[in-house]
Amino acid sequence: MINIETCLTPEILSLHQLEGKIAVVTDVLRATSCMVAGLNAGVKSVIPVMTVEEALDYSKKGYITAGERGGVKVKEFTIGNSPQEHMQEEYHGKDICMTTTNGTVAITEAKKRADQIVIGALLNVTVVAEFLKSAQKDVVIICAGWKGNPSLEDTLFAGALIDRLQEECNLTDDASFMALTQYKACKDNLVESIQFNASHAKRLSGLKAKSDLAFCAQEDYCDALPILRNGEITI
Amino acid sequence: MINIETCLTPEILSLHQLEGKIAVVTDVLRATSCMVAGLNAGVKSVIPVMTVEEALDYSKKGYITAGERGGVKVKEFTIGNSPQEHMQEEYHGKDICMTTTNGTVAITEAKKRADQIVIGALLNVTVVAEFLKSAQKDVVIICAGWKGNPSLEDTLFAGALIDRLQEECNLTDDASFMALTQYKACKDNLVESIQFNASHAKRLSGLKAKSDLAFCAQEDYCDALPILRNGEITI
Repeated sequence: MINIETCLTPEILSLHQLEGKIAVVTDVLRATSCMVAGLNAGVKSVIPVMTVEEALDYSKKGYITAGERGGVKVKEFTIGNSPQEHMQEEYHGKDICMTTTNGTVAITEAKKRADQIVIGALLNVTVVAEFLKSAQKDVVIICAGWKGNPSLEDTLFAGALIDRLQEECNLTDDASFMALTQYKACKDNLVESIQFNASHAKRLSGLKAKSDLAFCAQEDYCDALPILRNGEITI
Repeated sequence: MINIETCLTPEILSLHQLEGKIAVVTDVLRATSCMVAGLNAGVKSVIPVMTVEEALDYSKKGYITAGERGGVKVKEFTIGNSPQEHMQEEYHGKDICMTTTNGTVAITEAKKRADQIVIGALLNVTVVAEFLKSAQKDVVIICAGWKGNPSLEDTLFAGALIDRLQEECNLTDDASFMALTQYKACKDNLVESIQFNASHAKRLSGLKAKSDLAFCAQEDYCDALPILRNGEITI
């Protein structure tokens, strides 16, 4: 049996033991959805970094810069935080350096302690579950949240993942049980649940953002399994 | 309309603005349930303090000492953290000084910033809702959780309170929506939901603890409304 716990916000990550475990990091709107969709489409690798300055340093080495601050594309970057941008043909075979408000921070914190970092999104939730079943190590699901607060869409990812592992796992904390309840309550209309109830969805305005949300709320769009190896995320 | 937000653990309380708002603090298992049940039974006042040493200082002034560390009664204290103890006739008319692992810490943190502190538990959830409706101020529900982690039973209290305010409030964060979902999923069998799924319930072992749990999971056992005034909780 796999022991699973869920960290609803990186603010309490220090309370979770990660050593010897697999950390699944998610930021459904939109950092990890970008990574999954981009790598699946043909991006070669994604390097997550904490700061805009680090990303600009990578751009000098030929990396495509991507990411946002407060939901808005960083002015000096090539692309923002929309999965559609990351999937464009011109970035196939390219290396992207990415920094976002919540998602890349969670990855950076987790990699200091976890045995392995897997990038999860609703887009690839089943393949992540299959990987965890085969790995048979304990798991911490790390939700990026929004500026320290728990977020509905990341909690729904945690619940969706747990739902797929149910017969093979023990939920070792209350957050995991609550994530599963949330997913079961919303799974028949994920897009609407996120659109009408997630505060993050309310922050995303405009047509493009709405189509991003509908895209990111799809379960199992692909079977890409991005894993962090030596600071680089690849599939 | 009342704006409501929910803080699932005191670890992220600094992210919540409390100034000008009413903070409803809950620690269903068992600090705030003790306060509600004890004050309802006849206890005169409860002073919440952070440390065992502070409580022992109060005992020299004639206060009854109460509380736990790690779920176990503090050896030097008169009573522990079981509502049944707090309701005993010998404490009617008495002043209690209490310190617990999670609950009294949450109260102490909240009182630095909130306009008013209300003590909530499933035992008095409807009277707390009625008070909030009449006050018409914005509300932050502060869940004590367990050693920094969110807990099912406190989240259920938040959901139960929001459920009673639904037509008169805006949920301004995702945690409030998730608490409401959790409550709706569990409300028809609160005792079993907490007993079989809350990690805190698994830590409470023995017959007395089971009867405490069943007691604390009762909605609207009484209409006591404990409020913190000048460092003292009274009804």
